[in-house]
Order: sequence, then C-alpha cells, then structure tokens
Amino acid sequence: MSEQHVVVIGGGFGGLQLVNDLKGAGLRITLVDRRNHHLFQPLLYQVATTILSTSEIAWPIRHLYSDRQDVTTLLGEVVGVDTAVKEVSLRSGMTQRYDTLVLATGATHAYFGRDDWEPVAPGLKTLEDATTIRRRVLLAFERAETEADPAVRDALLTFTIVGAGPTGVELAGIIAELASKTLPREFRNIDTGKTRVVLVEAGPRVLPTFAEELSAYASKALTELGVELHIGERVMECTAEGVETSEGFISSRTIVWAAGVQASPAAKWLDVPADRAGRVIVETDLTAPGLPDVFVVGDTASVIQESGAPVPGIAPAAKQQGAYVAKVILARLAGKPALPPFRYRHQGSLATIGQSAAIIDFGRIKLKGWIAWWIWGIAHIYFLIGTRSRFAVAWSWLWIYLSGQHSARLITQKETMRDDDRK
Amino acid sequence: MSEQHVVVIGGGFGGLQLVNDLKGAGLRITLVDRRNHHLFQPLLYQVATTILSTSEIAWPIRHLYSDRQDVTTLLGEVVGVDTAVKEVSLRSGMTQRYDTLVLATGATHAYFGRDDWEPVAPGLKTLEDATTIRRRVLLAFERAETEADPAVRDALLTFTIVGAGPTGVELAGIIAELASKTLPREFRNIDTGKTRVVLVEAGPRVLPTFAEELSAYASKALTELGVELHIGERVMECTAEGVETSEGFISSRTIVWAAGVQASPAAKWLDVPADRAGRVIVETDLTAPGLPDVFVVGDTASVIQESGAPVPGIAPAAKQQGAYVAKVILARLAGKPALPPFRYRHQGSLATIGQSAAIIDFGRIKLKGWIAWWIWGIAHIYFLIGTRSRFAVAWSWLWIYLSGQHSARLITQKETMRDDDRK
Repeated sequence: MSEQHVVVIGGGFGGLQLVNDLKGAGLRITLVDRRNHHLFQPLLYQVATTILSTSEIAWPIRHLYSDRQDVTTLLGEVVGVDTAVKEVSLRSGMTQRYDTLVLATGATHAYFGRDDWEPVAPGLKTLEDATTIRRRVLLAFERAETEADPAVRDALLTFTIVGAGPTGVELAGIIAELASKTLPREFRNIDTGKTRVVLVEAGPRVLPTFAEELSAYASKALTELGVELHIGERVMECTAEGVETSEGFISSRTIVWAAGVQASPAAKWLDVPADRAGRVIVETDLTAPGLPDVFVVGDTASVIQESGAPVPGIAPAAKQQGAYVAKVILARLAGKPALPPFRYRHQGSLATIGQSAAIIDFGRIKLKGWIAWWIWGIAHIYFLIGTRSRFAVAWSWLWIYLSGQHSARLITQKETMRDDDRK
Repeated sequence: MSEQHVVVIGGGFGGLQLVNDLKGAGLRITLVDRRNHHLFQPLLYQVATTILSTSEIAWPIRHLYSDRQDVTTLLGEVVGVDTAVKEVSLRSGMTQRYDTLVLATGATHAYFGRDDWEPVAPGLKTLEDATTIRRRVLLAFERAETEADPAVRDALLTFTIVGAGPTGVELAGIIAELASKTLPREFRNIDTGKTRVVLVEAGPRVLPTFAEELSAYASKALTELGVELHIGERVMECTAEGVETSEGFISSRTIVWAAGVQASPAAKWLDVPADRAGRVIVETDLTAPGLPDVFVVGDTASVIQESGAPVPGIAPAAKQQGAYVAKVILARLAGKPALPPFRYRHQGSLATIGQSAAIIDFGRIKLKGWIAWWIWGIAHIYFLIGTRSRFAVAWSWLWIYLSGQHSARLITQKETMRDDDRK
C-alpha cells in the first residue's frame, strides 16, 4: 500500500478532533491510547462527587470509529519513539512505523517534586482517580458515624482541596453541598452539616485565570456554601492526618490535590526541549523542533500566543490544535503551501460553584449566577458524545434537581473500613 | 430507653424486607453491612457484560432509610457474635448489643476446596466482581487484536463459563451476543464473530432447576447464539491458560466461575450446625438452634420445604423470610402466640438467554421466547428500587434495542495491557 500512515497517540480531545478531521483523506490512521475510552474530563469532578456515573462521561474509543475503516484503534502504552527510523514502541513490545506522528498524550497531576503526597492527596485525571476520591469522601462520613473520639471525628469531617483552579473550586462546591444538603438526614450520630470543606490556594485569589470580578463572585458563592477559603497559603506537607500550610496545620483525613499539572513524557521520547511542566516547546505549526513529521498537541504542547500568554490547557484549545494539525497534514498531502501558524481563539472560560451558580468569562461579556449555570450545563451536554450520554447526564442532573439525591453514591473497589488503607 | 434493639446484619433482599416491615413498631434497629449499598444481584450479570452501569443496580443503604429515625445504618464487617452476652463484634472494634439479632449475610461463590482457582476464574457476587469480569472480557478482545500468535489469539477469543445455572446461562448468552453483534465492526485484525463461548456444566443439562422442556429450549437458544455446551463435563483444573475438564483441555484466557455457592460464616459465629454449603440449619421459625433471639434468613439459612426440597437461594425466598421474621418479632413484641412455621411460596423461576429470549417456569404455566423476555424485563424493572433506577435501566435497555450499542463498555481499575496481571 502506498497510503501514508498517521499514528496518533492519545484519544483525548485533541487526538479525536484530528482523527475526525482526517476522515475521507485516504490515509491509514492508527489511534493508540492507554485506556479503552475517551474521557470527558470537564465533568470528571462530578463522578468524584457522586453526581454522575463513570459510563456517562466515557466512551469506548474503538466504538467511535467503528464506521471508519481507515482507523485502527489499539489499546497500548507508548514507551519510546525512534525518530530516526520513525517508529513508536509500545509496552507490549509491538512497534508502529509512521509517516506522520501526532502526540496528544495529555498531562497528569503534579506534586512539584513531592510525589510521596499522592497516596494521601490523590489528584483527578482518570476515572479511577474519580472513583478513588468518591470512595474516600463517602468513607470519611461512614467512619465519622462510628468514631468515638471527637477530634478524630472532626478530622474525618474535614475535607481539604489543594488548588483553587476550576477543578478545586468545583470539587469544593459539590462536597460542601453534599454535606449540607444531601447527607444530613441519613446519619444518626454525626451532623454532616458541620462538615468543614477547606480550599487552599497559594495564589492571591480563587480562579486566578478569570477576571477579578468573577473571581470575587466565586469567593462569595463558595463562602455562602460554607467553604473555608485559605488563600495565599502554601502547602508544606500532606500526611494521612492532614495538611500543613504556611499558616498552620489543618487536621483533615481527606485531601484532594487539584494544584499542579505535569505533561506526559513526550519531550523525553522525542529528546526535544520542554518547559517547566514538561510540555514540548513546539514550532508555530505545532511540530516538534527539528522533527517536521512529528506534531504535538493539547496539554503535551507548550504554545505561546501573540499576547505572550500560553495557550491554556483546556479542551477547546486541544480541539483547535487537533483541527489545525489535520489541516497541515491535508495540505502537505495535496502538495499545497504551508499554512499560516496556529492561532488560538479563546472562546471563554467556565467554572461552576455548587449546583446552582457558575461564572463564564467570554472576555467582554461576563456572566455569573444561575444564568451562567444554565449556559454551562447546556454547553456541556452539547459537547458530550452521542444521544445516549446527553440523555443520561441530563436525566441525572434533572433527577438531582427534582429529588436532591445524587445517583452515584457507591463505595467500590477493595478499600474497606480498615484504617490501614491509606498507608 | 426501654425500646428493644434489633440488630440486622446484611442489607440484601432479606435484611431490607425485614427492616421495611418493622416500620412503626417502636423498635430501635441497627442495620450493618460491609458495603454501603444494596445490590440488585439478579441484574449483576448485566454489569459484567457491559449492559448496565454499577450505579443503576445499587443504592446507598443509608439513603433508603433516611426517613426512618428508628433505623441506624452502619458500614461494618462482623467478625463474631457472643450469644451469651448478646453482642456482635465488628472489625473496627465496635460492638453492638442486641435484644434480637437477624443474620442476613448472604453467600459468596465457592470453588469446592480449590480457592486457588479464584484469581483465574472470578465469580460474580459483588460490583467489584462484575467490573473485574467486564474488564477481563473487554481486555481479551483488545489483546487478541494486537496478538501475532494465532494459537494465543484463539485462546484470547475463547471465554469459558463454569456452571450452567441462571447466572452462567445469562453470562454466556450476553458474551456471545457481544462478540457476534456489538463488536465485529470495531476490530480490524480479528473477527470477533469467531469468538468461542464455552459453557461447562457437570450436571446432565443446563438450568437443572427448571422443567426439562424449558431447559431444552434454553439449550437450543444458547446453541443458536453460538454458545458451545459442554454438558456432563467436570472441571478438573483452572489455570491462566484454560480449563481442564473430564473430557479434555479448553484453551481459554478468560474464565468465569458460576458454579458453586458458599454461605457466609454465620454458623461459625453462632457455633451452630451448618449444611455442606455452610448454611445454618434453622428451626421452622427461622431461629438458629437453641438461640430463640437469633434469626437467620436468605442464602445464609438452610430451610427445607414440606416437599423435602430446599428453599432456593433466590431473592423472593430471602424477601419472604425477611417478612416472616418481621412478623415473628412483632408477634413476640405484642405478646401473641407463636406463628405457624415459615412456608415458602415459589412464585416462579426466570432466566434469560441473550437479549431476546427468556424462560419462565411458573409451575403449571411455562413461558419461553420473547414473551418470556418481556415479562422478565418488566418484572425486573418493577423490582428495582426507585423511579430513577427504573428509568435509567429502561433507558439503557431501550438504547441497546434501538442502537445495538452497549453503554457500559469501560475498562477500569488498575489492570492494563501487561500480561502479568493474572499471576
């Protein structure tokens, strides 16, 4: 076969957009991911907080391309790239020769050199992370219900979230509502209304990427939900007992890490320069430096806008990059001249605070409150894949709205009531 | 407080029926379960086979009793019962004094002394079991897609189910349909239509508790779905490579155990006689021998009917026993004379074969085919708890009916493509 082989690593927003846009191009495409599913990460915090089920925000990648005979889906983990012979190595020992390689391998949470904090302060990037956090949160209430020592009980009923970006704010808001609205009538020995939700942020305000007025609104809305804001406090230590910050110790048995991001090791595979977060510093056409057949998109790429600000690590940016790379590949295939450099168009920033307020920053237009929440909700349902998921998520939200009851309050996996599970 | 304390261990069908029926009796009730959820076990095989999500068939127990101020729910695992001082010990160290104790702790799968088979041949009793089986089944197809050795590929595409009771028949039917109907268009290197699903049964026919004509119909329906029936074959050995039966070796990388049942260790806690499956041989009023304040119900109890046949280990039997014990407790509380012995009323046996056929044995009336399937489906939706679940399950089934696509095809938990995960 003379057809070109495009190997795409990563079935996130960037990778899928690219594969979608290469439809009908007569290319042979191989899409490799470590997971069998595409994950709608913007709603992952709702799985962690018992609102949605895992299957509502994840889809088997190979099903998405069942009609695309040009696309082969492989479950596999990349361990290296040989750019000299143009070959990707997978952990299984399999290799894939490519004509064009696109790395869209995303990012994971980072502990700034303190990876030993991960067992006590899990982050939120995968479905397993979400069910781990869900289990810890629910188990903390269960343990508090049977705990005789008031100090331990208080520590069990204190939830600390590190990092007040959108994920941290969203987690804090829902956990506070879970404790104050959903759970109180179900416990006999504890008052879940006295739960402390502590949001720790090293920067000067919550949601630092939003306009100051929206950030101020979010602070107020969080405070009204009962979230304690610890702004300008740096985390010094995380243990099974709590969080030591620059201002003191927070006795807290449940910690969630929403602070840092580290790119996947694409720069190491390619042996090219990376920024501090490990992102490949790409050329203006999103190729890796000196490797015109290797593109890097999404959270794995460091792209600087004309304004000097970096392109944010959000789904729309990854999609735009995937679409751009598809155009570059098609132009090359057609022998057309090079495209102008990639340019990011910011469509807006969104964040929710609990289940009735949100903020949206469209640049000139700024929205807050329940109007913003409805726009946020409709936009997210729109961006889900397929009728089934849209229907299922809308139904889950409607049900919570009507009944006040969260539908995914299951403690699963091997962890039990034993106290040694966090060691 | 002078109110009597009823301690119920186990939030399955028997335990919940009992607690429901004690409403308004002025008792203090403590309901203890190892899990935070009640599980609708009759549909668990559908979670294992990617049809339903975990949250569609499980409900947080404490939510079910949020309105019942007389009920305290505890997440905890029983490690012993001191019948002399009437006290239950939990693993956490907590104890519960009781006036009346009801053990409804269910059963687990049993390997007839070969517990070493469990890692390669998981059974199906919990949500974790279901997601484990789902992961193994989906990973087998993924591995086959990238496997170069034809013999290994064939072994990966061979699924063996041990035991042709309702669970084994249901698993075999859905896995066969998954391979022949849902997956074929999604793979490029393998033909999932050539998948072998092998059902091994030591007894003389499938579904031995059903009438022979229904059993024969089930055999025919399974064969039409492509399931290979190995009837009258005993399993001699299970390994990561396959199943050795009395007739030969089946090279099969995925094995599911649906053969044996072992009761929870209630008989040991009470130090009373048990039958071969570990069930407490109860008195005619469902009390443990010599312990008039301790009742045992459901899969933990061995009850013989007037006909000499044992009461089957199914949900309706557990519910009837829970309801009976509630009546006995209420009669004692009111100082009324003892009730007549427990009598089991068999309402019928149901089993499905794939997603369009079922058999129902009402005794005199026997149904099969799609009419039976519809009755089965409506009955199961009716018995689910709450509007949300009924709606969600009906929607999932309708979606599969309309689109042919299963909605819960996620590979989750830590297992990856590595081959060492089963060692």
